[in-house]
Amino acid sequence: MTVSSPSPVVILVEPQLGENIGAAARAMANFGLTDLRLVAPRDGWPNERAVAAASRADHDIEGARVFDTLREALADLNHVLATTARSRELTKDVIGPAEAARELTDIAASGGRSGVLFGRERSGLTNDDVALADKILTLPVEPSFSSLNIAQAVLVIAYEWRKAHLGDTIPFQTNDAALPATKDDLHGLFDHLESALDEAGYFQPDHMRPTMTRNLRGILHKGAFTRQDVRTLRGVVAHLEGRRGRHRKVPEE
Amino acid sequence: MTVSSPSPVVILVEPQLGENIGAAARAMANFGLTDLRLVAPRDGWPNERAVAAASRADHDIEGARVFDTLREALADLNHVLATTARSRELTKDVIGPAEAARELTDIAASGGRSGVLFGRERSGLTNDDVALADKILTLPVEPSFSSLNIAQAVLVIAYEWRKAHLGDTIPFQTNDAALPATKDDLHGLFDHLESALDEAGYFQPDHMRPTMTRNLRGILHKGAFTRQDVRTLRGVVAHLEGRRGRHRKVPEE
Repeated sequence: MTVSSPSPVVILVEPQLGENIGAAARAMANFGLTDLRLVAPRDGWPNERAVAAASRADHDIEGARVFDTLREALADLNHVLATTARSRELTKDVIGPAEAARELTDIAASGGRSGVLFGRERSGLTNDDVALADKILTLPVEPSFSSLNIAQAVLVIAYEWRKAHLGDTIPFQTNDAALPATKDDLHGLFDHLESALDEAGYFQPDHMRPTMTRNLRGILHKGAFTRQDVRTLRGVVAHLEGRRGRHRKVPEE
Repeated sequence: MTVSSPSPVVILVEPQLGENIGAAARAMANFGLTDLRLVAPRDGWPNERAVAAASRADHDIEGARVFDTLREALADLNHVLATTARSRELTKDVIGPAEAARELTDIAASGGRSGVLFGRERSGLTNDDVALADKILTLPVEPSFSSLNIAQAVLVIAYEWRKAHLGDTIPFQTNDAALPATKDDLHGLFDHLESALDEAGYFQPDHMRPTMTRNLRGILHKGAFTRQDVRTLRGVVAHLEGRRGRHRKVPEE
């Protein structure tokens, strides 16, 4: 399952460490984002450390576009969110990642192009950077420990965007063999186990048989077994019966 | 706003790189998780590189508990999820992060203790590891690029857990402007208005110029303008300039 364009643009403003640029590209690739833009990367471009840190997303990072100014990087976009961990004196709407992701997908659906800004490693985005954005995006972090690595902030946004875009779709589902057992499967297990226990003289004293049976069936109902689980359990019972059977064949003297 | 215990336990199975252990501890701290357990870390414990990578979460990582076996690490838990990017032949329920987070908070609410397993850097969790878990947890990644760094996987789970625990953000308001202005349109309006106001001596006192400029841009960003809105506003500015121009041409006596 791939993601249809246009997906949001990730814009790193004056990133300092190639490792962070590469890790951000990798996080984007994990969730299907492809358009990475860099504004005045400190160590220039291309950057070998970025390519190394991108792991297998190296072809994505080689497609990154570099701009001298933030305004140039935003020129073709319709809607821009500025990611920041600090509250600002600027009068702008502040939204969280889930709401931002719904907003980004709605804008894409109406033919618009959007982008998300991420700031410098130490100092984040300036107020002038944020003034070029439509809204402030902030993450629901622990206030006492709110500073996220750039690549981790990119990861959370990319993850929420993919969820909003594709729903909570996971790449593989519960194995088909995990079909839940029918009552008929379960009743077959009851009969098999109870007859085996009968032969083993389990139901003593005899007047306790109904209660003991109900308790056993109650325990087996708690399992939420699959059809395969029931087949496995009947195999277990059969082997225990067989072993006891062989034992009984030993002459007793 | 802080998170009440018991929060889910994060269990790293045979982690190899101290950097990843530290980054995982930092990701946990970002979203209010505190209980980190390590099963047979390759390079022993404590690990200087882990403490360095934990950044300001170093006190959390120094509280990490180390176990020889996975079974010991799980002994006091009631419910365990195994994180994996690969489909397994095991017949277990497979859930995504959001559903997992709801499950983890429900279990905490009923007084239970839960944990999430994360595997080795290269090989992930073995089928025997997964067999000790109640369910499989997988992330909605791009199938063509599904391998997440351990700390990034921890981050997504910690983030979803905090969201499920502390609830969602404010409702989303749609902006259905037919032809939204691009940033280039808006920047042109900024330049036009600001130069006209410059001529008009608006930016007084001079040291207030940056604040006044940001406030103006903030106001103009609130409009969610269409391209036509921007053309109209530039016409308004042009007429104001022109009127002032004509006014100045009138001889004053």
